Amino acid sequence: MAHADKTTGTGRLNQASGEDRVLLPIREIPTHWYNVLADLPFELAPPISPATGAPVTFDEMARIFPPQLIEQEMGHDRLVPIPEPVLDVLAMWRPTPMIRARRLEKALGTPARIYFKHEGVSPAGSHKPNTAVPQAYYNKISGIHRLTTETGAGQWGSALAFASRLFDLQCRVYMVRVSFDQKPYRRTFMRLYGAEVLASPSPLTASGRTILAEHPDSPGSLGIAISEAVEEAAGREDTHYSLGSVLNHVLLHQTVIGQEAQKQMALAGDYPDYVYGCHGGGSNFGGLALPFVGEALKGRPVTAVAVEPESCPTLTKGRMAYDFGDTAGLTPILRMYTLGHGFVPPAVHAGGLRYHGASPIVSALVEKGLMKAETVPQQAVFESAMLFARTEGIIPAPESGHAVAAVVKKALELKEEARTATILFSLSGHGLLDLSAYEAFIDGKINNGGCPGEAIEEALSHLPAVTT
Amino acid sequence: MAHADKTTGTGRLNQASGEDRVLLPIREIPTHWYNVLADLPFELAPPISPATGAPVTFDEMARIFPPQLIEQEMGHDRLVPIPEPVLDVLAMWRPTPMIRARRLEKALGTPARIYFKHEGVSPAGSHKPNTAVPQAYYNKISGIHRLTTETGAGQWGSALAFASRLFDLQCRVYMVRVSFDQKPYRRTFMRLYGAEVLASPSPLTASGRTILAEHPDSPGSLGIAISEAVEEAAGREDTHYSLGSVLNHVLLHQTVIGQEAQKQMALAGDYPDYVYGCHGGGSNFGGLALPFVGEALKGRPVTAVAVEPESCPTLTKGRMAYDFGDTAGLTPILRMYTLGHGFVPPAVHAGGLRYHGASPIVSALVEKGLMKAETVPQQAVFESAMLFARTEGIIPAPESGHAVAAVVKKALELKEEARTATILFSLSGHGLLDLSAYEAFIDGKINNGGCPGEAIEEALSHLPAVTT
Repeated sequence: MAHADKTTGTGRLNQASGEDRVLLPIREIPTHWYNVLADLPFELAPPISPATGAPVTFDEMARIFPPQLIEQEMGHDRLVPIPEPVLDVLAMWRPTPMIRARRLEKALGTPARIYFKHEGVSPAGSHKPNTAVPQAYYNKISGIHRLTTETGAGQWGSALAFASRLFDLQCRVYMVRVSFDQKPYRRTFMRLYGAEVLASPSPLTASGRTILAEHPDSPGSLGIAISEAVEEAAGREDTHYSLGSVLNHVLLHQTVIGQEAQKQMALAGDYPDYVYGCHGGGSNFGGLALPFVGEALKGRPVTAVAVEPESCPTLTKGRMAYDFGDTAGLTPILRMYTLGHGFVPPAVHAGGLRYHGASPIVSALVEKGLMKAETVPQQAVFESAMLFARTEGIIPAPESGHAVAAVVKKALELKEEARTATILFSLSGHGLLDLSAYEAFIDGKINNGGCPGEAIEEALSHLPAVTT
Repeated sequence: MAHADKTTGTGRLNQASGEDRVLLPIREIPTHWYNVLADLPFELAPPISPATGAPVTFDEMARIFPPQLIEQEMGHDRLVPIPEPVLDVLAMWRPTPMIRARRLEKALGTPARIYFKHEGVSPAGSHKPNTAVPQAYYNKISGIHRLTTETGAGQWGSALAFASRLFDLQCRVYMVRVSFDQKPYRRTFMRLYGAEVLASPSPLTASGRTILAEHPDSPGSLGIAISEAVEEAAGREDTHYSLGSVLNHVLLHQTVIGQEAQKQMALAGDYPDYVYGCHGGGSNFGGLALPFVGEALKGRPVTAVAVEPESCPTLTKGRMAYDFGDTAGLTPILRMYTLGHGFVPPAVHAGGLRYHGASPIVSALVEKGLMKAETVPQQAVFESAMLFARTEGIIPAPESGHAVAAVVKKALELKEEARTATILFSLSGHGLLDLSAYEAFIDGKINNGGCPGEAIEEALSHLPAVTT
């Protein structure tokens, strides 16, 4: 019976354990968002208005966004101050812990040091509230009463439902049909905060009706749901649209993740050689990686890797081109990696990663070789996520499981090469509302899906013509 | 647009927010468990063996428990050191935050200061791992390979599944039938950690078969599930039984909650007038309240209130008497408040509180007037829990919702009386795997249930005869 040594034992142990879970006091929440555009040695290609063929103007964006977010979308200031009422809400769960996954390392027998930033501790269960809160706040102080949005897995919808409730806004969520059907708990979660949740495609919008007319059984996609939410917001004076990823201001808001991780790495006396994050629209990956890329641009190298599903390989198999952010062609045309806005990804168990496009910032950095991208198959995702749960205790969201799978692969490579390295990844959310996916895996009902090459070819043949 | 003041604004704000979420560094995890028995001015009545009619011996308990837990069950040492390997696991999530529920206070317009201890941050989502981890550890170092247990709502089964995985033990969970059917995600959660989950009553044990013969559609109860788990453990050399509440050693392990809260209250410059916790078997309530009761015995008064469902009012409508801890009469006979071991509570949405008995420690303290107890109806539970979720962001487990309901009631009374007071309660777990209950509430399908008076009368007429 190993009792704690009263004089030194327990103290020493707790000290050691403390190093494994690096906590920051609340006063260490970043006071500014970090804008990587200020440090990039090139300019991003501007978003193009489908109506004019010219770069989108402030006024065009003002139809669906409040002015502060448009300024942030277009801004080049390196540091953007976070408003006090936003900080006040972020302080409900931030700073999030950075945890050394020592039990996972041991299970893998890897010489690598693996850390993860645990964004699943937020009330909505993912990194998404980091941007939902400022978005709700700016809309509120701009006199808006109602927000519309889309959600895939439900993480973003949950976050905006939560933020809308705190700032007393109404919230309507168009939820991708396949998730709507697979995840009744997610719907309840959003309703509990007071949001209205509809399956997308829905008969409420022209975009939805068009899809339904052709494909009455459409599983939906993020692209379709975005079309519906944008269409509704554009048509109502009191309503704005809120996007959970892709755009510059969304990635900006998420940089609190990477900034905290930098402080935590310093406390741990370490620094990442590799930074991993799952990639759907880019906000989770960008939020963690961009502050490190900023350091890399100043001379401290890092390998930042976006991890996407084999079945929706935007960065790895898509084309860098101007394309619509949504399916119906209502959004500005963005220069990004895309599988074609008409591409409807297979209904895999990671709804948050089923997006045809990618953030223009991440796209440009991948194009320039400043970030990397790779895919993982679905079975490896669940195998690795389950190993993670059984060692570190936390059940990853299937989206986050993609990062875990890539990290496990890298850690085993390092073991093979008898080489050590420091790996940091974002555990973007917990999977407690995604347990049906794990059940399918445990019962042997998960397949790899694979890459739908022909459908991607077909969708890529319909890119909009843009000449700039 | 309210930007943060770069010189003082944000710092001040974060400072202020910091006071609302009181965090302790990992080195502040208590190094000892607190045993209130050392401070009580009276002796607890001993557990009685049904076989001999005499107090249970160490050897009798050794059939299903490891020696260290039996020592703790019978011990009177004030402070029991926590073994290092246990601390090492507790450090995965402890110390848990103590949070000032300022948004809830504001919504209620109460002058009361409301704090909650957030035990839902553990990997298993509740306070239960606090005892699951040491129980798994002591069994492991005693050469045991397998644990059996019962679970109601699933919180305890999840915790033991998690702890068993970390210490490489097999784990079989008898899950109360009504929860097994209502909560598929809970089953998956336990299976994900590697546990085997069976619906109770099951045909695998004599206890289960007896119930099924008489009531093939039995919704089950904690008492029945305990019988099955104990029966199996008693019959196998390599298998022990693990209990998630009621017994002295379980409450002992849970005192880390109250000890941390004492340090956090000191940091907040406050002290509770009232301490609330939901009460099923007593481990959550006792874990928070006992260290404060210890202080009360030394002269610093506190009103500690156990909150139970109107439909299973053990402490408020039960009888203080010797009774079995389980339905089949396999366990020792304990002196406690009981509704009768044959009582099967209505199938309300708080499976963790559906227990006919109560912890002997809490029972004795209620009997002596050192603790109080009250009931809340089911609708008030969900109304209050939903208000809590919409203000504080966190969705309480329905069990924890009972404490929230009692706290809301008290806060409104204080408002009525224009009186301030400090209230501390335990948010014993999150409700992310209980969202079907919230869905029923949102859809207007939750009724109050009420107190099944006649069934209690009937069950109380069958108490075992014990003369001591």
